[in-house]
Amino acid sequence: MSLPHVIIVGGGFGGLTAAQSFKRSPVRVTLIDRRNHYLFQPLLYQVAMAGLSPADIASPIRSVLAKQKNVTVLLDQVADVDLGRKAITTETGARLDYDFLILAAGAKSDYFGHAEWEQFAPGLKTLTDATEIRRRVLLAFELAEREADEARRRWLLTFVVIGGGPTGVELAGALRELSQYVLARDFRRIDPTEARVILMEGGPRVLASFPEDLSQAAVRQLGELGVEIRTGTRVTDIDAHGVAFQASQDSPAERLEAANVVWAAGVRATRLTGKLGLPIDRAGRVSVREDCSLPGHPEAFAIGDMAAFTGEDGKLLPGVSPVAMQQARYTAKLVTRAVREGKPLAELSHEKFRYFDKGTMATIGRSRAVAESGRLRLSGFIAWLAWLFVHVWYLIGHRNRVAVLLTWAWSYVTYERGARLITGRVDAIHPDTEQPAPALPAPTPSRALPTDGARQEERTSEPLRSPQPSH
Amino acid sequence: MSLPHVIIVGGGFGGLTAAQSFKRSPVRVTLIDRRNHYLFQPLLYQVAMAGLSPADIASPIRSVLAKQKNVTVLLDQVADVDLGRKAITTETGARLDYDFLILAAGAKSDYFGHAEWEQFAPGLKTLTDATEIRRRVLLAFELAEREADEARRRWLLTFVVIGGGPTGVELAGALRELSQYVLARDFRRIDPTEARVILMEGGPRVLASFPEDLSQAAVRQLGELGVEIRTGTRVTDIDAHGVAFQASQDSPAERLEAANVVWAAGVRATRLTGKLGLPIDRAGRVSVREDCSLPGHPEAFAIGDMAAFTGEDGKLLPGVSPVAMQQARYTAKLVTRAVREGKPLAELSHEKFRYFDKGTMATIGRSRAVAESGRLRLSGFIAWLAWLFVHVWYLIGHRNRVAVLLTWAWSYVTYERGARLITGRVDAIHPDTEQPAPALPAPTPSRALPTDGARQEERTSEPLRSPQPSH
Repeated sequence: MSLPHVIIVGGGFGGLTAAQSFKRSPVRVTLIDRRNHYLFQPLLYQVAMAGLSPADIASPIRSVLAKQKNVTVLLDQVADVDLGRKAITTETGARLDYDFLILAAGAKSDYFGHAEWEQFAPGLKTLTDATEIRRRVLLAFELAEREADEARRRWLLTFVVIGGGPTGVELAGALRELSQYVLARDFRRIDPTEARVILMEGGPRVLASFPEDLSQAAVRQLGELGVEIRTGTRVTDIDAHGVAFQASQDSPAERLEAANVVWAAGVRATRLTGKLGLPIDRAGRVSVREDCSLPGHPEAFAIGDMAAFTGEDGKLLPGVSPVAMQQARYTAKLVTRAVREGKPLAELSHEKFRYFDKGTMATIGRSRAVAESGRLRLSGFIAWLAWLFVHVWYLIGHRNRVAVLLTWAWSYVTYERGARLITGRVDAIHPDTEQPAPALPAPTPSRALPTDGARQEERTSEPLRSPQPSH
Repeated sequence: MSLPHVIIVGGGFGGLTAAQSFKRSPVRVTLIDRRNHYLFQPLLYQVAMAGLSPADIASPIRSVLAKQKNVTVLLDQVADVDLGRKAITTETGARLDYDFLILAAGAKSDYFGHAEWEQFAPGLKTLTDATEIRRRVLLAFELAEREADEARRRWLLTFVVIGGGPTGVELAGALRELSQYVLARDFRRIDPTEARVILMEGGPRVLASFPEDLSQAAVRQLGELGVEIRTGTRVTDIDAHGVAFQASQDSPAERLEAANVVWAAGVRATRLTGKLGLPIDRAGRVSVREDCSLPGHPEAFAIGDMAAFTGEDGKLLPGVSPVAMQQARYTAKLVTRAVREGKPLAELSHEKFRYFDKGTMATIGRSRAVAESGRLRLSGFIAWLAWLFVHVWYLIGHRNRVAVLLTWAWSYVTYERGARLITGRVDAIHPDTEQPAPALPAPTPSRALPTDGARQEERTSEPLRSPQPSH
């Protein structure tokens, strides 16, 4: 019973892969996560856009690991790590000693010091984030349908996505698709296809981590969908009314009024890295050595989005799932060898971790995507097929794969979305902040709610009766 | 453009059926609901028990009615009805005039004057209710897994269902199934099969609306699953610790400590009935005439759970979906005739509404159910097959049918549940109430969290270190 104890913090791509890699190792493993489910993050935007249900892309961690008897799963949050005494403590006050530690707690949305923006511009990291964005987006169309004021209707149907990385590009494309194809037929007074989607990116181009020609392909495909792209644009403020920004350096501040702003601009390692007593970089990542271990603590490792690992080329490895999973397998193998050979890790000669980059891809919408793998560069339908295949393949659990494929096939053929549910509050987009200014004006009596054929007239007939959405 | 205007309040079984029944009628219809989705209530317990996803049993109302161009759907809540002036006002201040009104806003959980019980014993009427119950139930097992105190572990794994009608019976059966088959393999320190489920019913038998032999069949099948049934039991109090009750009249009050209590004991018509200026009964229902119209207002109707309709036998029709749907079709037909013939409803000679009872059924778990239709009475596997067929058949939308069937087939074969997600707070069962007494005690350091082989020892080794969950 005194097998060496491995604690894994986090049940995402890295943590779960690490646990599974210990399947035949003579260790006992405790995996701690503050959520009960593993989440297939690359498809999270599909939940936010009502394409998939939360259960389609998430599985209970303990269910995934049920048959692996050397793993215990605990729902808890790690509060502190004592690297010297080799112990962790949790939020509920439990203390656990370890022989080996693998930190894989990932990252969360980062607002670059503007935490107050989060309430107006939710990020997309958890299922709760995704269903909240879904609520806000779908609710905007509902509120617009019963809105008599033209300016407010425009405000409700304007969506800003901040951040031109893969998540931002996927969200922006999916938003236009939702309004153009899915919702178009369902409303009587508004025309959902007129919804504006603006993608703002601080750098000079979207998908900056991709080769330049694929960036251009993405811009072209986004344009086909009707997404407005603003690169080189620095966001200076976000509130309940919209976004303030500078279109370029030294240009004056402008405003864009939008009921919905989604944040896809940056992530930061979870707070835990700050408690290790080790240097962290600007994104909160802790520097690790060539074997993913923490400096001075060969038995403690950090992998995935928590770790700053310097690759062969002197650059940091990107925060993508293949890095976390490869580091997980490497680390588990190293620990297993140390246990089997009965040697301390420091005395074990071993090769350093090498990341094998299989390529990256981003989807832009139905039949639209970009992908690169080595010298291969794809865009359009063929890239989308590759994206589809890879993502379904890697989804954990056979049931999920079938359910997702079925849902996609259905959506592809019918342009429908199965998960268009608004749960939670339906009175306002920003429930806790919207009371003062942008509360919905009372529609004009009766006439404001015509029930047929009034779409065109309605648009121009009503003078502004309420304060503009913002000033 | 001046077609007669029909307002339908509520998009459940009654309201949606009414809207669809106006498909070829020369009227314009406005359907108002405060939720954006139609909900297939009979399967709601499956969402609460992690068997189905919300999107599997719900469809956006406007999507269902997208092709019916004479219907406008509004997401709003009706605040008041002015029967004299034939107008309604909504929470957002809109006022709409009608020529015909169909009230079909349904019912909500009723706590018999004890509104304070709701926070401890959520009812099961909405998707939010269902995912909240799912959160609490799944969380109880998670908290038990990391709990060192035997008494608190028992408390966490005790579930009380109040109300022995179909919903209560289905919930109780599904809870035992969840613990016995689904969760059994996934935990290391607790044995989920030891979870207690107690079904409390005030009357002398469960499923009181069914024939007595089917009640007995249900009791037998619940017993096979391990559900403890307490009939003739009156609940006197519910708090964060559990339930106080009287086992029979004049017997002293007893207590049962349980972390989870679910309310399935009663429903009450939505508040709207109280604003009509007409008499309502104890369950908040407004009495309607033989043609479902409100007394003195032949152009205004109330159907489904809002209405007290006296049937042929002098008894009120039950609050089940077939009543609402048949009343909806009847009412729509009546209105359509009046419009086509150009006569006021009061002058239209018409037959009174007659309810055709096709039968009722309740499921108790995998392969277990009871059903009656006319003289036919079924129980066990054959009743379950009938239940399955009828429920999938009536689920709106082909996609949902396929998804539900697939999910069920998968669950049946593998004993898995796809939707075992805890979203929202994970620190306490009753987030806003649990701070004082039943906050989780800190587990004992290290030893309190063994990671393998410790299940048996753990159960008896730990003296009580924290206050009992209740006294």
